[in-house]
Amino acid sequence: MAKQNILIIGAGGVAQVSAHKLAQWAPEFGELHIANRTKAKADAIIASLREKGHEMPFTSHALDAMNPDNVEALLKKIDAGIVINVGTAFINMTVLEGCIRAGAAYIDTAIHEDPAKVCETPPWYANYEWKRRGDVEKAGITAILGAGFDPGVVNAYARFAEDEYFDKIDSIDIVDINAGSHGRWFATNFDPEINFREFTGTVYSWQGGEWKENRMFEVGREWDLPVVGKRTAYLSGHDEVHSLSARYKDSDVRFWMGFGDHYINVFTVLQNLGLLSEHPVKTAEGQEVVPLKVVKAVLPDPASLAPDYEGNTCIGDLVKGSLNGKEGEVFVYNVADHKLAYEEVGSQGISYTAGVPPVAAAILIARGDWDVKKMVNVEELPARPFLELLGEMGLPTRVIDAKGDHAI
Amino acid sequence: MAKQNILIIGAGGVAQVSAHKLAQWAPEFGELHIANRTKAKADAIIASLREKGHEMPFTSHALDAMNPDNVEALLKKIDAGIVINVGTAFINMTVLEGCIRAGAAYIDTAIHEDPAKVCETPPWYANYEWKRRGDVEKAGITAILGAGFDPGVVNAYARFAEDEYFDKIDSIDIVDINAGSHGRWFATNFDPEINFREFTGTVYSWQGGEWKENRMFEVGREWDLPVVGKRTAYLSGHDEVHSLSARYKDSDVRFWMGFGDHYINVFTVLQNLGLLSEHPVKTAEGQEVVPLKVVKAVLPDPASLAPDYEGNTCIGDLVKGSLNGKEGEVFVYNVADHKLAYEEVGSQGISYTAGVPPVAAAILIARGDWDVKKMVNVEELPARPFLELLGEMGLPTRVIDAKGDHAI
Repeated sequence: MAKQNILIIGAGGVAQVSAHKLAQWAPEFGELHIANRTKAKADAIIASLREKGHEMPFTSHALDAMNPDNVEALLKKIDAGIVINVGTAFINMTVLEGCIRAGAAYIDTAIHEDPAKVCETPPWYANYEWKRRGDVEKAGITAILGAGFDPGVVNAYARFAEDEYFDKIDSIDIVDINAGSHGRWFATNFDPEINFREFTGTVYSWQGGEWKENRMFEVGREWDLPVVGKRTAYLSGHDEVHSLSARYKDSDVRFWMGFGDHYINVFTVLQNLGLLSEHPVKTAEGQEVVPLKVVKAVLPDPASLAPDYEGNTCIGDLVKGSLNGKEGEVFVYNVADHKLAYEEVGSQGISYTAGVPPVAAAILIARGDWDVKKMVNVEELPARPFLELLGEMGLPTRVIDAKGDHAI
Repeated sequence: MAKQNILIIGAGGVAQVSAHKLAQWAPEFGELHIANRTKAKADAIIASLREKGHEMPFTSHALDAMNPDNVEALLKKIDAGIVINVGTAFINMTVLEGCIRAGAAYIDTAIHEDPAKVCETPPWYANYEWKRRGDVEKAGITAILGAGFDPGVVNAYARFAEDEYFDKIDSIDIVDINAGSHGRWFATNFDPEINFREFTGTVYSWQGGEWKENRMFEVGREWDLPVVGKRTAYLSGHDEVHSLSARYKDSDVRFWMGFGDHYINVFTVLQNLGLLSEHPVKTAEGQEVVPLKVVKAVLPDPASLAPDYEGNTCIGDLVKGSLNGKEGEVFVYNVADHKLAYEEVGSQGISYTAGVPPVAAAILIARGDWDVKKMVNVEELPARPFLELLGEMGLPTRVIDAKGDHAI
């Protein structure tokens, strides 16, 4: 069988990482393509690949992915077998539609969002993606949802605990700590618009077999984690809770994100003043403006943070459960280093952890291991091949269990 | 001599106060007029006058005061003798030009600002207003600059100390404490655009015979003042320093404004993020937006704070000097009550203290006491008639001197 052509959609920090990883693993694929609304940003990524010694492995394309006709046309034109969608979260459904029509496999790393809505009814996946399950199966394509780090690798960590530790799972607590420092007064690690939207709505968690609602920063807990040490993380809303709760109905599923007091203060000021709103306000001069888009405009471009970023991230799942009635717990995790990520692919650690996994997913589709010809979330797929491949690709998995802290 | 027609330009919180005070002192004048860019806001003030039992003493007009031709035409049409300019700080020079052409007396309460510039070379008055001194004198009109509370009454306080206490003045420290509470999470007491612009630039003070430069919130000092008690105030840039430094060349002239930690935190976040900038930024969608105007749009309308405002302001001058070689000091001050202001004229205390003094100045022009037929700042005029009239009008002056705390 001929090797499949692959297309990255998007040209931000995550796309940069995915492109570098694809270039490193180019023998797994046919042609490599990258498409973005602004073609110049795709070209910049290609230039950075060339700087690292990769010999022009990509072709760039201008693409308005909000229109499925455009996506379909490009996929057919380049005969794409696999699409990695790491563009804005607003294009998932149009890109998926293009893949269904063109018969290409689909991979994304974050849930679909409607620009006009924040925090819809849980489970979020049921509002958009899961409605297309039938169409995906009918088209005979593979669609892997949320295959970044979180969601993505952390879903595989939960499945790993299911496969190798427990026959009954009581709780899955996903903890995401960024202990890195970018040296700016304030910045978000990815698109501020998406970043803040995560925290302005209701915090949904799955506990006791039902959805619990909290406000952001209402519930905090101190964690003591490898490398990053003691950190406070807050119960947060996040994509993976909305799929893991379906597979692990009888378990508590929570997501905890670490924040420093400075971040919380800035967020609280902007939030309380109304500057994080996606609803337009009118200035005294009569101009209609969405405040959140202005906040985004004044904040540093997340991609610009990479050169000065230092320190580590630690992201993992604390899974509690039992095997043959014997209770136990395991912490499955990865530690990533911002500086090493920058040296390798020119991006900081947050982009690195998000951009490598979809390439691993694409390799597993190309090899057939994950080419399931239906729509799945990552926890529905065998975890070990994914985690072992990620280890080879720079994101090793470790566990802390009864035997101590060791590699899988 | 026939009584002079008077025109208020502007229809914000300060204009509301000035209009009510003019209505109370209507016998001093001929016809009363109010003009504003949006005529409906002038009509709303007239409606509030009617609610207080004043029988329609005003005629309203729509006026774009950025064009001196419009100002001239309106002044001639209504045969205005005196103009109280309490509109935005951007219109001073065009309104003054209109007064010069039409032969009307001019009063304002804040220094002229160019929308595109923050914090120009000191003394600020020399950049715009004082350049027109010759033209004002040639036209034979009276122009009283900065006749609000600060600048305005505090300039008269300095002159009062000069007239009645000292033959040599060593220092003038103006302290402005608002110990009131509006019950909102955050709000500015007057137009946020003007409010924040005051604090984003260099803080100029006149010390040791020269301009000193500091940053906002760099120099703080605890004060213990009548009624409001112990409060921290910060060395700030303010109009009056830029005129008092001319008359009191050998004295130190400083302005201190009180701020709570909450205000400073919000200001610091907005300032550091770049959201207080008057320079346009471009959103990802390509829209050009001035961040400060968006901040203004999301903040509460200062006029809306009045009904719930409680507590007091204390604004005064601590003047140190000597008389016949004997050193001494006097604190000349006023305490105003937000709630009483609202009950009397429907505005909070900050607007009240700013809106009453220009009406007192207009009365003194109408009576001839202050009709000096040239351009002056308030400290160039005899202070006692002004302060005594202000006492009758609701802003009594008190002093703390060797004899204790007493009325003037």
